[in-house]
Amino acid sequence: MKKNSGFKYLKLAEKLQQLIINGTYPTGGKLPSVRTLHQEQHISISTALQVYAYLEKQGWIEAREKSGYFVAYSRLQNRRALPPVSNPAPTAAEVQVNEQLARLKFYSGMDVVSLVGPAPDSAILPAGKLRKALSAVARTYDDSYIPYGDIRGYEPLRQQISRLCLNWGRAISPAEILVTNGALEAATLCLRAVAKPGDTIAIESPTFFGLLLAIENLGMKALEIPTDPVTGIQVDKLEEAFRQKKVQACLLVPNFSNPLGSCMPDPQKEKLAKLLARYQVPLIEDDVYGDLHFSPDRPKTIKSYDLEGWVLYCSSFSKILAPGLRLGWVIGGRYQEKISQIKFMNSAATNTITQMMVHRFMEQQRIDLHLKNLRQTLNLQNMQMIKGIQEYFPKDTQLTQPGGGISLWIALPPKVDTWKLFEQAAAEKIIITPGPLYSSQPHYANCLRLTNANPWTDEHEWAIATLGKLINTQL
Amino acid sequence: MKKNSGFKYLKLAEKLQQLIINGTYPTGGKLPSVRTLHQEQHISISTALQVYAYLEKQGWIEAREKSGYFVAYSRLQNRRALPPVSNPAPTAAEVQVNEQLARLKFYSGMDVVSLVGPAPDSAILPAGKLRKALSAVARTYDDSYIPYGDIRGYEPLRQQISRLCLNWGRAISPAEILVTNGALEAATLCLRAVAKPGDTIAIESPTFFGLLLAIENLGMKALEIPTDPVTGIQVDKLEEAFRQKKVQACLLVPNFSNPLGSCMPDPQKEKLAKLLARYQVPLIEDDVYGDLHFSPDRPKTIKSYDLEGWVLYCSSFSKILAPGLRLGWVIGGRYQEKISQIKFMNSAATNTITQMMVHRFMEQQRIDLHLKNLRQTLNLQNMQMIKGIQEYFPKDTQLTQPGGGISLWIALPPKVDTWKLFEQAAAEKIIITPGPLYSSQPHYANCLRLTNANPWTDEHEWAIATLGKLINTQL
Repeated sequence: MKKNSGFKYLKLAEKLQQLIINGTYPTGGKLPSVRTLHQEQHISISTALQVYAYLEKQGWIEAREKSGYFVAYSRLQNRRALPPVSNPAPTAAEVQVNEQLARLKFYSGMDVVSLVGPAPDSAILPAGKLRKALSAVARTYDDSYIPYGDIRGYEPLRQQISRLCLNWGRAISPAEILVTNGALEAATLCLRAVAKPGDTIAIESPTFFGLLLAIENLGMKALEIPTDPVTGIQVDKLEEAFRQKKVQACLLVPNFSNPLGSCMPDPQKEKLAKLLARYQVPLIEDDVYGDLHFSPDRPKTIKSYDLEGWVLYCSSFSKILAPGLRLGWVIGGRYQEKISQIKFMNSAATNTITQMMVHRFMEQQRIDLHLKNLRQTLNLQNMQMIKGIQEYFPKDTQLTQPGGGISLWIALPPKVDTWKLFEQAAAEKIIITPGPLYSSQPHYANCLRLTNANPWTDEHEWAIATLGKLINTQL
Repeated sequence: MKKNSGFKYLKLAEKLQQLIINGTYPTGGKLPSVRTLHQEQHISISTALQVYAYLEKQGWIEAREKSGYFVAYSRLQNRRALPPVSNPAPTAAEVQVNEQLARLKFYSGMDVVSLVGPAPDSAILPAGKLRKALSAVARTYDDSYIPYGDIRGYEPLRQQISRLCLNWGRAISPAEILVTNGALEAATLCLRAVAKPGDTIAIESPTFFGLLLAIENLGMKALEIPTDPVTGIQVDKLEEAFRQKKVQACLLVPNFSNPLGSCMPDPQKEKLAKLLARYQVPLIEDDVYGDLHFSPDRPKTIKSYDLEGWVLYCSSFSKILAPGLRLGWVIGGRYQEKISQIKFMNSAATNTITQMMVHRFMEQQRIDLHLKNLRQTLNLQNMQMIKGIQEYFPKDTQLTQPGGGISLWIALPPKVDTWKLFEQAAAEKIIITPGPLYSSQPHYANCLRLTNANPWTDEHEWAIATLGKLINTQL
């Protein structure tokens, strides 16, 4: 992967980009003079000029005669329209994404430019520190990873997870936590605990195909609820479904969902938590992206407001440390005992070694600092991807503006067929995920999800430019 | 755990026991003279005499005047009767073991003498070598364990697994193998691939409660088939069920099943494989104990004879390397693609680190030698447990004589209630698993399973003696 990081001026330019994004230099604000850069950064005047020329060309800043350089942000302010609130049919449907997914698989493992990554790229995850933690497990931990572990998970790790939960405002005891093979196992255990085949599960629309697949493979039905690309699921529409006794449970990603990137405002979460208790409907909350907020504050969770245990909270280390660890957890509320029973026969206790490894990592490293860096990097990559889309995609492309996470959702002009685009792109060795994958209904044929999970490179810019061309051939 | 291994004479006595068990010194055969032991083993005459005195007291050998010492084996030859072939009702039943299992859980993690271990004790597993392998992964492998792994599993490990399959006579390509979180995940993925809620699964009677739990939690029914404690499930009875279209699939443990320890003769396996093809019934074969044979030859599997892909073969490293690794695999035959889809949403790819660890272990260590040692140890422990039961349990106790694996199944006189025995034993801090756990029907109230998975210690002998006393109080 090319990273464009060979040149001194580019490194500094990227740093300045980050400072613009994180608000150190606000829109319209003045940047350091060329002379200041020269002195403080120990670079030549000509390199300093190169830095600003580059940022200006990229549209991040503008030069004002005799005044210096200012944060332009004009391209990002010149935002594309948001996609509309979704409007799925108000009836439960059987899910059929397995077959569609098979069309994607063909390309896995091939040498392609993937724009579909479901987790942050390895390049921005703490591989070296995780390796050190693994080494420490081999060196200093006892052999208690040999026998079956505690079905609930390695206790020292559960203690650390309970500290993480404080970030969204709840004191969860380690005994309330069950460690799983990733959040996907957590979510399917929860589905099996709260519903049976034939039951209807309320979901956002669009929603991550992995969750649709879980519903499909468990023989359940999906009821898609209108969802706002900024504020998430429409709580009043969900309440309507509760009132009509249409759903047995909910499965939501309230924070920076895949693919919309929407984030329910905290008061909406509180309102929903109360509705769950009133209508006695369990809700599975998948919060794997909750820590990846671009603004300073971590959003709360629905679990934050759950007083009666109706929320089954799932999360994982996949999006913040390493997806390959396959470590997630569930706080099952009133369903915890049942979840634990299903876990026992689903895969017994989760392997202890990777749990010890993460425990060591968290003991030795400042995870808060790691998360801060990761968030800034994802924010930057998000901006870069948005700029690319704005540059190369048709003017009437609609585009989300997520406040966190790793997903961008794009609605192209209605004439565009993203499955056709997928085939055209695959011929160029570019992989995207077409919109229809994200629904149980025949929607989103003109939509696609892209990810900001990878460092922005020339290769990615080429891929976005190529997609833009392919889209234009369809118009 | 006391191991009695502090004394020189005991160590040598244990070695001789092993040589008796593995047939180096056959029943009735002559043992080395005291003088030979003295010279070849570099021990004193008095230690050599101590060795033989100990073995004689334990009943392994007998002294014949002026002739020396001979293998007695008398106690083991003086076998208790086998339990009868089981006779379950010929109707499918809903499974309800969850509730019963809850009664066991209370004691997990407490300081008790456990006679229920589901896998070989850590003391007889290669902890040191596994630790070295883990260290090597941290030191020498690349960081490819950070991102999501291949859904099928780490390819170099799958290559090694395919070599293991040669032990039971099939050339399985790595592409036919899917790595799972233990054999339990493999079995539940298979169940979900071949059957749906309400379907009936044919099983052995008695059968491992983990498998019953899987059937229960998937909302399926169990049809128990009469099973011989030596030769396993009765194939003609199973065929009858096929003919009457009573079952959608089978779930069997043909080699050294838990709890019976029975092993289907290979010709029966071949016959069954042909029936599966004729009646087009899929069979899930759980072969986790197949490598733990006490006689020199590894039994074949039903998969060995499966020409049309009706057998879904499951196994794991849990019983041969370390259960805490949670590494199993499935060879799904004609269901492989479907299994892979379900795996994707069940837990995504299995974590790569533990796969690399086992790969390294297998690359650096002679797994065949490790297995040989493990088998001998389990055989020895099995003999010791049998001797203990024969010494302390009532005369009319019926007892299996497994040719491999880690389970002993005991039918006590009909008046004994093993749930009551469980409570009595628990009060003495001894944990057993009562017979009713192993059936979907109200059977086996006078039965229990014990395990030879732990090194035989004074503590274990005390526990067996105590159980014997408690049983007698019930008579």
